[in-house]
Amino acid sequence: MTGTATAPFTADDYRARMERAAREAADAGLAGLLVAPGPDLVWLTGYAPTAATERLTLLVLAPGRVPVLVVPTLEAPDAAKAAGAPALTLRDWTDGKDPYAATAALLDAGGRFGISDNAWAMHLLGLQKALPATSYASLTEALPMLRAVKDAAELELMAAAGAAADATFEEIRKVPFGGRRESEVGADLAALLRRYGHSQVDFTIVASGPNGANPHHEVGDRVIERGDMVVLDFGGLKDGYGSDTSRTVHVGEPTDEERRVHDLVREAQEAGFRAVRPGVACQEVDRAARAVIEDAGYGEYFIHRTGHGIGVTTHEPPYMIEGEERPLVPGMCFSVEPGVYLPGRFGVRIEDIVTVTEDGGRRLNDTTRELVIVD
Amino acid sequence: MTGTATAPFTADDYRARMERAAREAADAGLAGLLVAPGPDLVWLTGYAPTAATERLTLLVLAPGRVPVLVVPTLEAPDAAKAAGAPALTLRDWTDGKDPYAATAALLDAGGRFGISDNAWAMHLLGLQKALPATSYASLTEALPMLRAVKDAAELELMAAAGAAADATFEEIRKVPFGGRRESEVGADLAALLRRYGHSQVDFTIVASGPNGANPHHEVGDRVIERGDMVVLDFGGLKDGYGSDTSRTVHVGEPTDEERRVHDLVREAQEAGFRAVRPGVACQEVDRAARAVIEDAGYGEYFIHRTGHGIGVTTHEPPYMIEGEERPLVPGMCFSVEPGVYLPGRFGVRIEDIVTVTEDGGRRLNDTTRELVIVD
Repeated sequence: MTGTATAPFTADDYRARMERAAREAADAGLAGLLVAPGPDLVWLTGYAPTAATERLTLLVLAPGRVPVLVVPTLEAPDAAKAAGAPALTLRDWTDGKDPYAATAALLDAGGRFGISDNAWAMHLLGLQKALPATSYASLTEALPMLRAVKDAAELELMAAAGAAADATFEEIRKVPFGGRRESEVGADLAALLRRYGHSQVDFTIVASGPNGANPHHEVGDRVIERGDMVVLDFGGLKDGYGSDTSRTVHVGEPTDEERRVHDLVREAQEAGFRAVRPGVACQEVDRAARAVIEDAGYGEYFIHRTGHGIGVTTHEPPYMIEGEERPLVPGMCFSVEPGVYLPGRFGVRIEDIVTVTEDGGRRLNDTTRELVIVD
Repeated sequence: MTGTATAPFTADDYRARMERAAREAADAGLAGLLVAPGPDLVWLTGYAPTAATERLTLLVLAPGRVPVLVVPTLEAPDAAKAAGAPALTLRDWTDGKDPYAATAALLDAGGRFGISDNAWAMHLLGLQKALPATSYASLTEALPMLRAVKDAAELELMAAAGAAADATFEEIRKVPFGGRRESEVGADLAALLRRYGHSQVDFTIVASGPNGANPHHEVGDRVIERGDMVVLDFGGLKDGYGSDTSRTVHVGEPTDEERRVHDLVREAQEAGFRAVRPGVACQEVDRAARAVIEDAGYGEYFIHRTGHGIGVTTHEPPYMIEGEERPLVPGMCFSVEPGVYLPGRFGVRIEDIVTVTEDGGRRLNDTTRELVIVD
């Protein structure tokens, strides 16, 4: 169900991550962290339950204590096989028992805890009821940058995922577009991502002609026509780390206006990329890309933030958005993806994953950003 | 990403469901319901966002008011296409704005609200902060049976999903088991479920020999051997409704003990099924199945509840578990799946989906429950 590939990390790697997380929690004034199944748990322990369900699974991290994974008895054998299991204690609970009481016994009754963004509301309410004096902050609010800075091994995996996405683009530009449905090209994208090593395909956007003006259009039944601009945006997980790249192609020769808008977005993307260096606030990346588009009079048609972080998920902090004043740090990975969306007509988006280096940025996608003509 | 097939329901169907939900909320003393992306939202509106993300999407239902779907601007065009969209108002919010303030403006500031079990903790915390005097209960706590009783059209879809799972079993019993990996047989199961119309495969458990003693083992690299018991448990969604069935097969001739344990589980499953009729408490189904296994001295090896509800998900209320005193109602659908798990040796589980009729129960799975010998 989760499709999360096992990354090549050891119990020691996971122990170090859990210790760092507990230390950062203490520095942020938290009594501990409560980590639900999903990307945080994968990153901290290597454990991905078959499915997130109504049965509580929760990792309890507190400074100076051995991490405890509360887990349904049924799932304890699987949890025990996780690469990070040697670095934690399993505490299982059986159907019919109260898992919140069991978890509450591990918590500081008056403490403030960080909790995974995607923990189920049902489980948070259960904890709030079991320990009314505790308080909670989402991990994105409390420790937004916990997973943001990638180490060398992670960067290698990110680069490999990016290269696989680039290989996918090099193949997809050769397939026929005109006369085929978006959904058919989308299926090609998914097959190529898997062929190049992705274990999980998260999105395969093929937004042709007017559909391109909806940034979140995925694929539809529309038959792509000669003369269409087509936004391609695709990615997923390869060996547990994410890819995400966009290129906009044109079926046959573009009009002058189409070429002009594409050039504009390319310049905006370049400006966003050039703004990347350690110490710069995230919002400066957004501002740099947006300024190019606003100066050209298309500001109202750039209707989303410039980028989002990526790692063990394809969507996470840091966000390149106005108001995000936290600084870029070497090892962060995020998208730079400005776009222009002309309602009822067409859209253009160009996106690379960029990682922050010691003195600037490095693109993890590097296919051409010129307008590619397809058949 | 969600893979949720569009069920054949109209805006009027969704309007009726939303009105009923609001009415039931009022009867339960709630000011309204807050519904997050996932099965509740699909059931109430037909809308399944491409992915549940950090961007808030939330349906606000309150008695006597038009339902409002709070949705990111980017995703509003997709939401507007949902079959239930004509029955609600879309209220979109743009990156950088505060979606919790926008949602809070729709809520009774001192009210108590039901919220989807799987709403993100991050979003619940945002609402709690925006409106500190509100209180919340998970939908499973507040209105556990909201989706539990299926109407005639839903029962048809459930029966069709069950028939597809049965067709899958009839094919899988013919494939070779001995000498192949569990993962290979699991891939066969997934392909068969899709061939018989499933759009989403949720689980394909192939637990051979000692792996069968772990009820949540999925598939592994173990090579199935002659003499193995093999627990098969598979299901997913077909046309938006769930299937879930288990049969235990044997590779070659079983021992007397294996046959005896299989007979015992079959009797327990039959006893659970026979306990099903309107007005009976859910826990009685569990007790009936469990008594058979306990009386035979295997009680300690039946380590999970007897069943779970199923509908637009493969895991939902009602639960057939000790302590669940709510009565069965015609139209409910749930699994009856006792098992015996002998650590280090083998396991047996037999599972049918059962729906409550006016005077008893009807199985939606009906392949043989005798021990099937495979090659």
